[in-house]
Amino acid sequence: MKLNILLIGSGAVGSYYAARLSQAGARVSVLCRSDYDIVKKQGINVTSVSGDYHFTPEAVISNAGEYGSQADYIIVATKVLPEINVPELIKPAVSPATAIVLLQNGIEIEEPVAAAFTDNEIISAIAFISVHRPEYGIIQHMDYGRIVLGMYPSGTSGKADALARLFRNAGVPCDVNPDIVSARWGKLMWNAPFNPISVLAGGATTAEMVESEPTRKVAVEVMKEIAALAEKAGHPIPVSTIDTIITDTKAMAPSKTSMLQDYERGRPLEVDAILGNTIRIAHRLQVPVPYCESLYGLLSLADSINRVKNRLR
Amino acid sequence: MKLNILLIGSGAVGSYYAARLSQAGARVSVLCRSDYDIVKKQGINVTSVSGDYHFTPEAVISNAGEYGSQADYIIVATKVLPEINVPELIKPAVSPATAIVLLQNGIEIEEPVAAAFTDNEIISAIAFISVHRPEYGIIQHMDYGRIVLGMYPSGTSGKADALARLFRNAGVPCDVNPDIVSARWGKLMWNAPFNPISVLAGGATTAEMVESEPTRKVAVEVMKEIAALAEKAGHPIPVSTIDTIITDTKAMAPSKTSMLQDYERGRPLEVDAILGNTIRIAHRLQVPVPYCESLYGLLSLADSINRVKNRLR
Repeated sequence: MKLNILLIGSGAVGSYYAARLSQAGARVSVLCRSDYDIVKKQGINVTSVSGDYHFTPEAVISNAGEYGSQADYIIVATKVLPEINVPELIKPAVSPATAIVLLQNGIEIEEPVAAAFTDNEIISAIAFISVHRPEYGIIQHMDYGRIVLGMYPSGTSGKADALARLFRNAGVPCDVNPDIVSARWGKLMWNAPFNPISVLAGGATTAEMVESEPTRKVAVEVMKEIAALAEKAGHPIPVSTIDTIITDTKAMAPSKTSMLQDYERGRPLEVDAILGNTIRIAHRLQVPVPYCESLYGLLSLADSINRVKNRLR
Repeated sequence: MKLNILLIGSGAVGSYYAARLSQAGARVSVLCRSDYDIVKKQGINVTSVSGDYHFTPEAVISNAGEYGSQADYIIVATKVLPEINVPELIKPAVSPATAIVLLQNGIEIEEPVAAAFTDNEIISAIAFISVHRPEYGIIQHMDYGRIVLGMYPSGTSGKADALARLFRNAGVPCDVNPDIVSARWGKLMWNAPFNPISVLAGGATTAEMVESEPTRKVAVEVMKEIAALAEKAGHPIPVSTIDTIITDTKAMAPSKTSMLQDYERGRPLEVDAILGNTIRIAHRLQVPVPYCESLYGLLSLADSINRVKNRLR
């Protein structure tokens, strides 16, 4: 029996994986906003390092109430922003058997959805991928693509396993991790320092951030704070991780972080998902995080000034 | 007898005060660099809130070796930048009776000059002024103008008193402070947070920095670190100062800091004078300054990226 999947948020990451799941045989519909007309008319074209392909969604809808099927999975791939109310957005399409998959960045981003849908299975998923949407309906897949997913807050399930199998059938490496929150802390170790610093240091590449000694120090101190916090939250991170991250980031081809790309395009930044939630957890657990607080205080203002500029453009 | 004064660095601040000293009857010469031709030809025009006037220097020179008089005072008003070697720049014009006046921003900026000219009197001076140089040879004086000066590292002297009198004769409010290093720490309380944050937060005005709660927190924490450091260095700052600064900054007309203006014009920033020296002092005195370190790590990279961009323009 074919699985029914509804994608919420047709940005680069969501569109790429929805197209892959469709290739694997699922019936994948897409909820679009600003790109509705284009995707409705021409579907989504994916230019990928592993071959180009076209994705015609089962249905293209503009709000979840229009979804005519019973969703086995609703995959939420929107940005995590204060102005996007995910429970409200997906509610009309959620049925008792629906597993809600949060394919998003950040830490503790599952809480509002888990609280709103206490009877539904929540699957938390993180993507390691380099992918862009140069224009509506066109996705460029540059590199990587692995997904790690698991039940939230922990464990695994038939639904999680089935989704992972489907991804793998589509050629997407996918691991099920019964401690997905630990995996999120692990991803935050890179995201929390490098995404904000790239914006705040005046448009810095990955290479510039690790080559400048005083800047690298800021990144390392942020990682130390995240590690201390993760440990106290019950999700310890191996001590060697920081050195590995620095070494790996030095070895990468110099590139712009996704947050810097968003900033340069005048798009809203995931300040709270990456830093705001981290700081709230730190206050709750009484762990001092002055470096995270510095980045947060600067980035929240940079984001708000950037949004105003963009509206005035 | 008329006093001989040589100004080194004909930026906005230096030119303004040199012009005032000339009005008061001193023989003021100016060492210019990129603006040499224009100042040589037409002098300096000052548009001031307290009346416009023209200043014709006694001599306009392009290196200190050309100075033909015995300088009573050499006033150094250059930016404090690693690439500007002040002792080398002024050496040919320094005679045994010359007092060297450092009219510059930052903390511990006197050290290299004091070490190079052990037999000369060093006067340290800080200016509270809003003044710009829209183009070479033209100075716009917007607001304020007070100077505080004193012997470095402490005390007062006939030369310091005479210079203060000359300033006052020219209508410039000028106080002699026998503890000028404490006065520098006091000025750093504003400069260390607000100049860097205005750049790092994506071009923030004074009002935006104090209105945003998480950004204001960064500013306050930086001030707490500076106060702790000043105390340990033997220059305690009253505890009420932080609240006063926040209140005063809220009350100001929203404006761009001088560092933000420099950044937007692609000019080098005084990263070391304001933050680098602060951090070196903190390491020496073993005071933790994570907020200052965060700003320093971000600003040093932002400055270096901005310099490269400017060279490529």
